[in-house]
Amino acid sequence: MITAASNSRVKRLVQLNQKAKLRRTEDVFLVEGVKMFLEAPPEKLKEVYVSESFLEHCSCREQLEKTGYEVVSDAVFDKISDTCTPQGILCVMEQFHYNMKELLQKKAPLFLVLENIQDPGNLGTMLRTGEGAGVDGVIMSRDTVDIYNPKVIRATMGSIYRVPFFYTQNLAQTIRELDAAGINTYAAHLKGKQWHTQADYTKGTAFLIGNEGNGLKEETAELANSYIRIPMEGKVESLNAAIAAAILMYEAGRQRRL
Amino acid sequence: MITAASNSRVKRLVQLNQKAKLRRTEDVFLVEGVKMFLEAPPEKLKEVYVSESFLEHCSCREQLEKTGYEVVSDAVFDKISDTCTPQGILCVMEQFHYNMKELLQKKAPLFLVLENIQDPGNLGTMLRTGEGAGVDGVIMSRDTVDIYNPKVIRATMGSIYRVPFFYTQNLAQTIRELDAAGINTYAAHLKGKQWHTQADYTKGTAFLIGNEGNGLKEETAELANSYIRIPMEGKVESLNAAIAAAILMYEAGRQRRL
Repeated sequence: MITAASNSRVKRLVQLNQKAKLRRTEDVFLVEGVKMFLEAPPEKLKEVYVSESFLEHCSCREQLEKTGYEVVSDAVFDKISDTCTPQGILCVMEQFHYNMKELLQKKAPLFLVLENIQDPGNLGTMLRTGEGAGVDGVIMSRDTVDIYNPKVIRATMGSIYRVPFFYTQNLAQTIRELDAAGINTYAAHLKGKQWHTQADYTKGTAFLIGNEGNGLKEETAELANSYIRIPMEGKVESLNAAIAAAILMYEAGRQRRL
Repeated sequence: MITAASNSRVKRLVQLNQKAKLRRTEDVFLVEGVKMFLEAPPEKLKEVYVSESFLEHCSCREQLEKTGYEVVSDAVFDKISDTCTPQGILCVMEQFHYNMKELLQKKAPLFLVLENIQDPGNLGTMLRTGEGAGVDGVIMSRDTVDIYNPKVIRATMGSIYRVPFFYTQNLAQTIRELDAAGINTYAAHLKGKQWHTQADYTKGTAFLIGNEGNGLKEETAELANSYIRIPMEGKVESLNAAIAAAILMYEAGRQRRL
């Protein structure tokens, strides 16, 4: 059992929570909680850490025996956990590596294209809602918050394991690729003359969603095939980015179920 | 200028940020930021505090002269602010007092009925999205988080000023009142046999949304006229409460625009 906070493995886990660069170098990320442990793709699971008191009371001992695990003292677990009320189980997972070619395999796919989303909770919620709405992938500009940030992971509620995603080094080029693949790109934009419910999303569709404060950059919006507008009553100037994404994805879902 | 953190007015403002009970006793709440100051209904604005450096650089001096204001040192402002990066302007506002009779005045109204929502960001986002979608009111169970919590206020982005709301002491009774007023009540529930897009929301409509972790209580769901279900693909078990509310309100909006 690891009981010393000065242990080099403990230090490494703390760093992995904090530093995107180290996660990238090691090609791993951390997940916490029983649900995230149980839903983890086995081939991606590299290390499992449990707190002493978790091990005493947990109902997943059988699974733990299969995967193997390391016990740490409750005090050490508090150190390595990113949450205020740790559940007592943390896993090191291997990162995912999707590419555009895989994402484009499906017929009439539905994509979310994100530019410079900064709030981890928003990004995580978009993955969770995206899985629910049936998106085939989430494409992100390189300046979007790191998807392996622990706060993103938590907000995905497990969808991180199942929704394909891709960070593009060149967003403009990727949007052109989507276009070339026959996918209609829609920019949610105040300039839109049609409501978001007036466009046809039954063909291949990609929704472009911009940064929380500033929306889409003009040059990005201009690459879209069409502008659409989500109606806003009262004095509301914009919707939360994750809310806007949800409304669009579920409108696409509605049309595709008809 | 107030420069001492020990000043009794400073202490009161700190307490007003932290304590729902004190806000209730004084019948006030706090708002921060230029946008919240400029959009504040004048008759509700009771006190305005600005930091020294805000006053030097602000572009709203004319409005400040009209309302009157008190200057505090930057250090004191950091104390009274609830945010990590304070904008430098904070107002004491009078609370709103709506009642069910007012809320029921409109023909074919659209309501959101919330049971035990606990996350301040979720509640604030629901008000913001609600205004955008055109809801006529938000009704909350008494155990819902305090709507005057500074984190709720911030997430509303000003909608707190414009969306009527009501805390009911007896949620079951209020749902029966809605029913008696001819308003169709819909419980978002996994038991729902119809998709949320298959019901008709063009008449008076109220959506019942439950707590983030547990959903609606069974006895509350049973009071609804119908169960509806938001489709969920993949392994998603539930959506974030604010996301679910947004999808429902915007589906009602879509049907009402047809």
